[in-house]
Amino acid sequence: MIKVTVIGSGNVAQHLITAFLKSSEIELSQVFSREKENVAHLIDAEKITNDYRSLSESDIYVIAVSDSAIAEVSSKLPFKNRFVVHTSGSVPLEDLDSKNKRGVFYPLQTFTKNKEVDFSIIPTCLESEFDDDYTILENLAEAIKSRHYLISSAQRKSLHVAAVFVNNFTNHLYQIGKDICDEHQLPFEILKPLIAETADKIQNLSPLEAQTGPAKRHDQNTIDRHLTLLTNQTQKEIYEILTQSIQHSHVKKL
Amino acid sequence: MIKVTVIGSGNVAQHLITAFLKSSEIELSQVFSREKENVAHLIDAEKITNDYRSLSESDIYVIAVSDSAIAEVSSKLPFKNRFVVHTSGSVPLEDLDSKNKRGVFYPLQTFTKNKEVDFSIIPTCLESEFDDDYTILENLAEAIKSRHYLISSAQRKSLHVAAVFVNNFTNHLYQIGKDICDEHQLPFEILKPLIAETADKIQNLSPLEAQTGPAKRHDQNTIDRHLTLLTNQTQKEIYEILTQSIQHSHVKKL
Repeated sequence: MIKVTVIGSGNVAQHLITAFLKSSEIELSQVFSREKENVAHLIDAEKITNDYRSLSESDIYVIAVSDSAIAEVSSKLPFKNRFVVHTSGSVPLEDLDSKNKRGVFYPLQTFTKNKEVDFSIIPTCLESEFDDDYTILENLAEAIKSRHYLISSAQRKSLHVAAVFVNNFTNHLYQIGKDICDEHQLPFEILKPLIAETADKIQNLSPLEAQTGPAKRHDQNTIDRHLTLLTNQTQKEIYEILTQSIQHSHVKKL
Repeated sequence: MIKVTVIGSGNVAQHLITAFLKSSEIELSQVFSREKENVAHLIDAEKITNDYRSLSESDIYVIAVSDSAIAEVSSKLPFKNRFVVHTSGSVPLEDLDSKNKRGVFYPLQTFTKNKEVDFSIIPTCLESEFDDDYTILENLAEAIKSRHYLISSAQRKSLHVAAVFVNNFTNHLYQIGKDICDEHQLPFEILKPLIAETADKIQNLSPLEAQTGPAKRHDQNTIDRHLTLLTNQTQKEIYEILTQSIQHSHVKKL
């Protein structure tokens, strides 16, 4: 049984709390939440605290707060030599206060409020300052059935950038698709099967193999026609740079 | 029973042939293929021709060839006043030779060789020069269980641009994610659940609601750190312009 304390009450904290409560191998001993009502629907009131001094002893303290608050929260913990981890993709392990043994438990996923998360399909990136603590991280990941990877802080930084491309930026391309639809009285619904298939394709093909379209074909007529159609300057620039980048990856066959 | 002739033997043609053969409401009377062996695994040899003069009468001729060949192929047809459609997202109806009655049957999907396509989840964009022919298009779409939309040539052009953003460009962002992983000895596998969830999210949320990440949060520290990490100049430029575009859509709350 792993005794876990969660510090935080936002999106990630709530999804972790739900997953930890479901596991028979985890005892969720306490949740720290400045505003107790944020997590009152998830866990018994007596297990919620908003006072750092009342934090009891645990095998692992999971700080799931916004990136910019991690350092401060970790420094406020009124104990030392315990195992304290954060859950961020972009914050180095060293941002945690060194009075405790430090680690990272980063579930690589985009969390939506009110949409339950299946950790068995979410990979978790693990890192610990001391080898002895790594086993706790592995056990915690396995207790929620998550596939886990040892990822260093340096690797995690790069992974987070990669995640921004495939998640944040991809979602923004969906947004541009919707904007173009709206502009021309087309239902965005019509693009949804294409979006689903585009994501599904690379589960089995490499993105290089899966690439299609005028940029890959170096079909300059279509590219020019598309650029003429775009009325928004930013959309034009995004179209141009992504087209160039695809053409660079797929050199024209002579 | 709709009598259909398919002209072409590429990816889209093959998927349409397969779907047409499955439908009890369609009689696939002939397939024109310059190289007969391209479609020999799909349909009886006597139904394949490589001679325009031997094309028999059909309710609809579906030209599924590359965009640049559509005009030429349609002009080579040795008959007139019959119903001839193409299947392209980016070619106007008018590119078809006007000696026949013209139309468009454009299935909005990315087709992968050897991966069967479920037309019941693929929308089809329909357009006809004459109202009378539109019913044939509707019946054809319904015979393969496809949801269909009346989309004008002007709308279809814009829809095709939108499709390039959500499909071709999105796939290229997956490629960049993979390139970053490769550069830092990270398995691309680790990003696949995130890619799947990103696409899944917008089936129910609007892309605007689904947006997350440092750009949306106007988290300049993380953005700067990411830009420092990127060693590839094109990746940097793509990061910058997509970040600016997201920030423009999500104005900072003061």
